[in-house]
Amino acid sequence: MSVLIVGSTALDSIKTPKAENPRLLGGSASHASVAASFFAPVKLVGIVGEDFPKPYLQLYRRHKVDLEGLQIVPGKTFHWSGEYEVNMNNRRTLATELGVFETFTPKLPESYQASSFVLLANIAPSLQYHVLNQMRRPKFVVADTMDLWLNIALPDLLKLLKRVDGFVLNDSEARQLTQEDNLVTALKKIHKLGPKYVIIKKGEHGATLSTRNGLFISPAYPLRRVVDPTGAGDSFVGGMMGYLSTARGTIDDNLRRAMIYGSVVASFCCEGFGLKSTTRVTRAAIETRFKELAKLTRF
Amino acid sequence: MSVLIVGSTALDSIKTPKAENPRLLGGSASHASVAASFFAPVKLVGIVGEDFPKPYLQLYRRHKVDLEGLQIVPGKTFHWSGEYEVNMNNRRTLATELGVFETFTPKLPESYQASSFVLLANIAPSLQYHVLNQMRRPKFVVADTMDLWLNIALPDLLKLLKRVDGFVLNDSEARQLTQEDNLVTALKKIHKLGPKYVIIKKGEHGATLSTRNGLFISPAYPLRRVVDPTGAGDSFVGGMMGYLSTARGTIDDNLRRAMIYGSVVASFCCEGFGLKSTTRVTRAAIETRFKELAKLTRF
Repeated sequence: MSVLIVGSTALDSIKTPKAENPRLLGGSASHASVAASFFAPVKLVGIVGEDFPKPYLQLYRRHKVDLEGLQIVPGKTFHWSGEYEVNMNNRRTLATELGVFETFTPKLPESYQASSFVLLANIAPSLQYHVLNQMRRPKFVVADTMDLWLNIALPDLLKLLKRVDGFVLNDSEARQLTQEDNLVTALKKIHKLGPKYVIIKKGEHGATLSTRNGLFISPAYPLRRVVDPTGAGDSFVGGMMGYLSTARGTIDDNLRRAMIYGSVVASFCCEGFGLKSTTRVTRAAIETRFKELAKLTRF
Repeated sequence: MSVLIVGSTALDSIKTPKAENPRLLGGSASHASVAASFFAPVKLVGIVGEDFPKPYLQLYRRHKVDLEGLQIVPGKTFHWSGEYEVNMNNRRTLATELGVFETFTPKLPESYQASSFVLLANIAPSLQYHVLNQMRRPKFVVADTMDLWLNIALPDLLKLLKRVDGFVLNDSEARQLTQEDNLVTALKKIHKLGPKYVIIKKGEHGATLSTRNGLFISPAYPLRRVVDPTGAGDSFVGGMMGYLSTARGTIDDNLRRAMIYGSVVASFCCEGFGLKSTTRVTRAAIETRFKELAKLTRF
């Protein structure tokens, strides 16, 4: 089955202590789509301007990402620029130019509306909601978010959460949302907002899943070198949803393995700027790291 | 087999946002000894002053901790007082009164010198070295440390590291010691200092073991409520060494499980002030959490 993914489609200019890369293909939907593409066909919903480089469209196509839902309109593509500190964990935004995103209204092609697996990757919660409203009967809907929306669009996010199956956020966002320092307690509070499955991402420390059957502690793949962590979280949810959409059995049967696949794709993402490393990955390389993670955690 | 443990034996006055507890039984050797005692008999090496409360001696004895190596001398017991911030991760030292520790020279009773398992819990590396020099042919020696010794006794620590099998430190200490931000690379650098087994503790994020066979990612037991994390790291190494000393097979066969047992005892430690929660634990309760951790990480 295919995965429908809505989110940002952007150009990222990324500075790290070691290098500077302007106008890379970026955005939550781009990272999530490429990540998911290793497991399943992807239907992308997004918007770019006429300045969007043709090679990036070809990149999507090479990954069999359906672009019927990608609007190409007059104006400039969303552009984010940011800078990482030496430890590669802290980053600051240098500039955000919304461009064509300012007036984006996602409109789902007919062929998208019956998708069973829906990933509402990071984007304004009102847009995530708008996409969800156009779906017929999705089987499994997951939303990702970021601190910005907690700050400026919390009511929209809370409205959305009542209608999603899964919700993914990072540890600091979970603490901000619940005003609770302890993550086990924070998870309980987030369930009360609606989602049956809650995943807290903790970067290099992995992720924690909470379901009615309890917790799952998911490791991160240990990397010797982090080149650029931009998009790692998006790759994680993308890989997870891609795997889930093709796995036989129930969500509960497969979600743990799906998270491990997500971690693996996220680890590749961190090894290059933008999508450079992720796009070079093969399914075989993913399987190798999956098996390695199994070995690394066995006791 | 028994475990020989040297380290600090102290009185801790601990303040958290919720409570204040003066003159609790504390110190690295106290926490590590009680933790190890659930698995094996412990031989304690330490020093206290004449002000050391009798009930604390009884507490050691209840846990079958051999006190022949505990010097009780005129003067005051080492006293540490500290305060935790709301998130329970950051703490600051309010006062350190060394007392009888200022002139401590550990002298091993004859009956201690043949111990096979030696835990050099956190204490000045020169004292750890001095203890090691009095051992006959220990089978497995592990040293723990703290940032203070990296700052004021680095040459002593480096000398010690050439002679230990295992070395345990936390993530910020590993970064400080190696001047390396990436922990996988930091681990490689630490091996070059001598230890065959290196464990980096990451608090609520678990721990990572590095051996010549690769890494092991060890989870922390997820806690709903952290009352006082003082001594959690000491409980971790204590539980680990206690289990190791009784397990059949090679160190490599058992170290992963030993770390999980260490994590479990550390989790109990965090649930009460000082040793209050740890001392109430049973081996059965430890086994229950061990099994839970197996379930929490399976995929």
